[in-house]
Amino acid sequence: MSFDTINEYRKTFPSKAQVIEQTPDPGVRDMLNHLDKAGIPTAFDRFDAQKPHCSFGLAGTCCRICNMGPCKITEKSPKGVCGADAHVIVARNILRWVAAGVAAHGSRGREVLLALKKAASGQVALPLLGQDKIVATAKAFGIYEEDKTVAQLAEQLADLLLEDMSRAVPATHRTIAAMAPPERVKTWSELDIIPVGSYHEVFEALHRTGTGTDGDWENLMKQLLRCGLAFSWNSVLGPSIAADCLYGPPKRSFIDTNFASIKKEYVNIALHGHSPVLPSALVQASRDPELVELAKAQGAAGIRLYGICCSGLSSLYRYGEVHPLSNALGAELVMGTGALDAWVADLQDIYPGIMDVAACFHTKVITTSDSCRLPGAIHIAFDHQHANMDQIHSQAKAIVKLAIQNYSARQQQNVYIPEVSLEAEVGFSVENIAQAFGSLEELAALIKSGKIKGIVNLVGCNNPKVVYEQAIVQVADTLLANDIIVLTNGCASFPLLKMGYCTQKALAKAGPGLQEVLTERKLPPVWHMGECLDNARASGLFRALADKCGQPLKNMPVAFASPEWSNEKGVGAALSFRLMGLNSYHCIPAPVQGSDKVANFFAHDTQELLGSVMVVIPEPLALGQRIVNDLAQRRSKLDWNGNKQEV
Amino acid sequence: MSFDTINEYRKTFPSKAQVIEQTPDPGVRDMLNHLDKAGIPTAFDRFDAQKPHCSFGLAGTCCRICNMGPCKITEKSPKGVCGADAHVIVARNILRWVAAGVAAHGSRGREVLLALKKAASGQVALPLLGQDKIVATAKAFGIYEEDKTVAQLAEQLADLLLEDMSRAVPATHRTIAAMAPPERVKTWSELDIIPVGSYHEVFEALHRTGTGTDGDWENLMKQLLRCGLAFSWNSVLGPSIAADCLYGPPKRSFIDTNFASIKKEYVNIALHGHSPVLPSALVQASRDPELVELAKAQGAAGIRLYGICCSGLSSLYRYGEVHPLSNALGAELVMGTGALDAWVADLQDIYPGIMDVAACFHTKVITTSDSCRLPGAIHIAFDHQHANMDQIHSQAKAIVKLAIQNYSARQQQNVYIPEVSLEAEVGFSVENIAQAFGSLEELAALIKSGKIKGIVNLVGCNNPKVVYEQAIVQVADTLLANDIIVLTNGCASFPLLKMGYCTQKALAKAGPGLQEVLTERKLPPVWHMGECLDNARASGLFRALADKCGQPLKNMPVAFASPEWSNEKGVGAALSFRLMGLNSYHCIPAPVQGSDKVANFFAHDTQELLGSVMVVIPEPLALGQRIVNDLAQRRSKLDWNGNKQEV
Repeated sequence: MSFDTINEYRKTFPSKAQVIEQTPDPGVRDMLNHLDKAGIPTAFDRFDAQKPHCSFGLAGTCCRICNMGPCKITEKSPKGVCGADAHVIVARNILRWVAAGVAAHGSRGREVLLALKKAASGQVALPLLGQDKIVATAKAFGIYEEDKTVAQLAEQLADLLLEDMSRAVPATHRTIAAMAPPERVKTWSELDIIPVGSYHEVFEALHRTGTGTDGDWENLMKQLLRCGLAFSWNSVLGPSIAADCLYGPPKRSFIDTNFASIKKEYVNIALHGHSPVLPSALVQASRDPELVELAKAQGAAGIRLYGICCSGLSSLYRYGEVHPLSNALGAELVMGTGALDAWVADLQDIYPGIMDVAACFHTKVITTSDSCRLPGAIHIAFDHQHANMDQIHSQAKAIVKLAIQNYSARQQQNVYIPEVSLEAEVGFSVENIAQAFGSLEELAALIKSGKIKGIVNLVGCNNPKVVYEQAIVQVADTLLANDIIVLTNGCASFPLLKMGYCTQKALAKAGPGLQEVLTERKLPPVWHMGECLDNARASGLFRALADKCGQPLKNMPVAFASPEWSNEKGVGAALSFRLMGLNSYHCIPAPVQGSDKVANFFAHDTQELLGSVMVVIPEPLALGQRIVNDLAQRRSKLDWNGNKQEV
Repeated sequence: MSFDTINEYRKTFPSKAQVIEQTPDPGVRDMLNHLDKAGIPTAFDRFDAQKPHCSFGLAGTCCRICNMGPCKITEKSPKGVCGADAHVIVARNILRWVAAGVAAHGSRGREVLLALKKAASGQVALPLLGQDKIVATAKAFGIYEEDKTVAQLAEQLADLLLEDMSRAVPATHRTIAAMAPPERVKTWSELDIIPVGSYHEVFEALHRTGTGTDGDWENLMKQLLRCGLAFSWNSVLGPSIAADCLYGPPKRSFIDTNFASIKKEYVNIALHGHSPVLPSALVQASRDPELVELAKAQGAAGIRLYGICCSGLSSLYRYGEVHPLSNALGAELVMGTGALDAWVADLQDIYPGIMDVAACFHTKVITTSDSCRLPGAIHIAFDHQHANMDQIHSQAKAIVKLAIQNYSARQQQNVYIPEVSLEAEVGFSVENIAQAFGSLEELAALIKSGKIKGIVNLVGCNNPKVVYEQAIVQVADTLLANDIIVLTNGCASFPLLKMGYCTQKALAKAGPGLQEVLTERKLPPVWHMGECLDNARASGLFRALADKCGQPLKNMPVAFASPEWSNEKGVGAALSFRLMGLNSYHCIPAPVQGSDKVANFFAHDTQELLGSVMVVIPEPLALGQRIVNDLAQRRSKLDWNGNKQEV
């Protein structure tokens, strides 16, 4: 951290006025001004109202895990009532965040695992569209047999992934055994951090952080690492595999993005959230000729879909034509166009604030998950036991019908759509990247040669503690100019989608190496991989390239960056890449500064344990430059061509 | 709540000086003064140093579940950055507490389930001492077959209990199906709150409470109820069953309690924590003639064991002669005697503060769980995978040897033992209570007749927000005087143990009805049932009596009280009894006052849903009287003999 105290840190938080002035997307600026005039508050107003933020919370030294408190660490009170010091309190708090991240990705992931199982066993009418993936994964897991049907293999895979989630009696973690690099498995085994299962490690994390249980910050960090592995190897990779098995692989396609891709003459439906299950059915329903006719009978030109946050993005790369509009933090701005007839919210990063904006317009919000309800929304969802998943298609149709019926209620005079739109290419995957280069060996060779200096997975959510979307764009600019390819997904990908980074035109921002190798292959410099779960694809690409280069990941010129991160899943995402041996880079610190020991664990100690650290630099251009330097240093250590002179 | 504002509430917190003046146990007063003079601080000093407590934390309106905050609810900022209002924030916070309670009891419970499984399958050399319990439970679960061995039945039971813990694919909850009252199962089914499994509901609770997921306080409360059922029917009942299967049933016995039961001439070992697994082996080891000889060779008269918190209590009712000294909050006072040669800490409610006190003496602290380490302690434990559980006996012997070797290091001049000790009877269970009355029908008849006006399970941890141990004693006094039998366990049971409530002499405090029926049966008026997990025994007794009376539990004159509760498990314990239809009574409020909706849910709404509410009255005598009145009202509604006139 470059600022001395929490107090100084708080002073760096921008105001809404600063955001309006400095955020890079003109559409966002326009819409923030429009809503301001209309008197409709958003997250940026609420952030201003929260100032000044509690310094104990920011430092991680507020303890609220029992009712003897709340306790806080001060000079007068260096320990909580129970005797826990700053190190234990900070460690417990951040462990609970990581555990919650495992649970978040895992719970929504479980829905996909259940869907795959039910589809494979014929309980739900969903075709298995990823037959190649099913066979390939079954082989990787060592369960492939020629006389098994693809459906049988798929069900067995779903069961294995569910087993890695729910194991209570210690046994081999099947996904790690099948897919993790042996060098890493050795490292993790020596640290004794291989998870029993995701459910268990979350359970155990809550247990350890309870009153008077783990009083050793280092032991708490060990559990944090275990949770990090559960996060990446089950909560994220499990459903990523299952979704590809069920829905098929991503396809590259072009799409219009941002506000002006909203067309007034259509029945407009936003998909907001993270689960692919009901949204997939909904995309199908929106293309049902009968429903399209119904829309036309209402005077609309047809039905058009838009993506908010992640479920829109995964629908887009599978089915095409779901226009990406905004990440979670900007969702209220899209709602504020007044042009959406239905807003389908499944789960996660659906800020309750959207309901207040929706109330100003005709927009109907439909919640579709038992885990995520909003007072005032219409609820059409699977139940807690997923017993009614067989009704998926009728639910999807009912939702599309609601949107169609609501079209005529739209008050066109209240509709306001900023005139900004750019095209973007989406749908990159390990498989189609290999195709684009002929092979991954070729891409690996370009990295070794120095034409491509490295690859960075630039992702993460947004945070009003920095100027909205600015850090992501500035880091991307710095990386591209230095011949570093950017992978992106989820919330962070929206400014890149909206501002032309995902097209070949953006090669103008790139260094000569990237310009050369990407122009001839007709590739953009930012490869959009989908939603936040698709960190699994980035990780898969990194693992494959390390293999091709014959190097462990901790030596490779690749990195993870989530400059503007804010939610609990974000801590797990960064951690999971650090566990692979990649540094993670951020403008926003985690609330661990209240303990020098825990802060150092993240910033330094893990270098020896894992070959990676967490780097926090508040200023985005400086952060970008630090990534460039660190990758150059990795290249230098590898003695890779064309690098030594440049460092 | 009888106080208007959080600010007024904070002013009611006692100071250490008030505690020294007003706490009922003279041994505690003596020791607090002694340590004060010696300049050794305890939890009571640290509590004073924490004043004034954060009002947002106390009200539950501080949100720290993402890094856009921390957010707090004020007039200026009625919503968090995401738009969550006070109701959602308060609901999320209390749900996370309940989930952590499920995980705490569940994680330590899982160790017992694994021990039973390993013992039954011959992987660990532990005899199955509860053969009757194994057979009876197997019959209840519908898995009994004549040609299965007891070991086979035991392993199958362990598997079923582990299945109820770890189920990921929805199916019947085996323990609820086998053991819950049909009237309750119907109620819970209608509310859709029957858990998939404990792991899952905890996972899902963390998921729902994450950023932008559940925005509906009522839906969050539904998940809280689900977690409450997971808490009682798996996290608590599961290991209770397993422990009785493995270690055999409780036995009634008499024991000397409190400081003066510590004998200077012995090798003194304290058992502190909650897991019965290693402590059971340790009790055995302490009675190993070879080790007793070794102790004598060091000049000691023998080896003596003492109980702090719960693992001492469960050892006591199974093996006898483990002298109960203190609950968790008073543990530092026992450490401060300087008379303990080894302090064996397993897990939960082991405040890190004990290490600072231990550092002033020769006492060696040995941690015995991977979940609970303390810097400076010697660590002899099962590993994270429980792979070395077969070394249990050698571990136990090594710990006893450490204690013996440390005996000669004791600085006798620094030893200070308050001269207070009283006898207590312990080891009550459903089975031996039935024996004592001839049958449970007889006990039920005495309740119906009005000789016994009701039964209250008076339990829970302690909290420096009220005068230490005073509320428990005052509530007990009020109940006994009104002919209400008290069941007790865990932390709350210590003042009752130490101050003579668990002997027949305490009948002097009882009303005429209790005096009559208990004198002739040679029973005390407070029945000590063991450690906090033994809420399962209280619940079992209540269910059995309701059956005998032909009444649903929500009509019965029985209740749950944890006047001084403080930890996350405590919220779950009270909730689990409310889910059965019993009111819960407390002097300490949960941090839910920041939302009138959530506060009313606990205090009122659940009356219709569950037939029970949470009652909070800060003044202990008034709380006791409220319980008396409420039970009288239940009796009155039942039209049970001898009651109507008295109400």
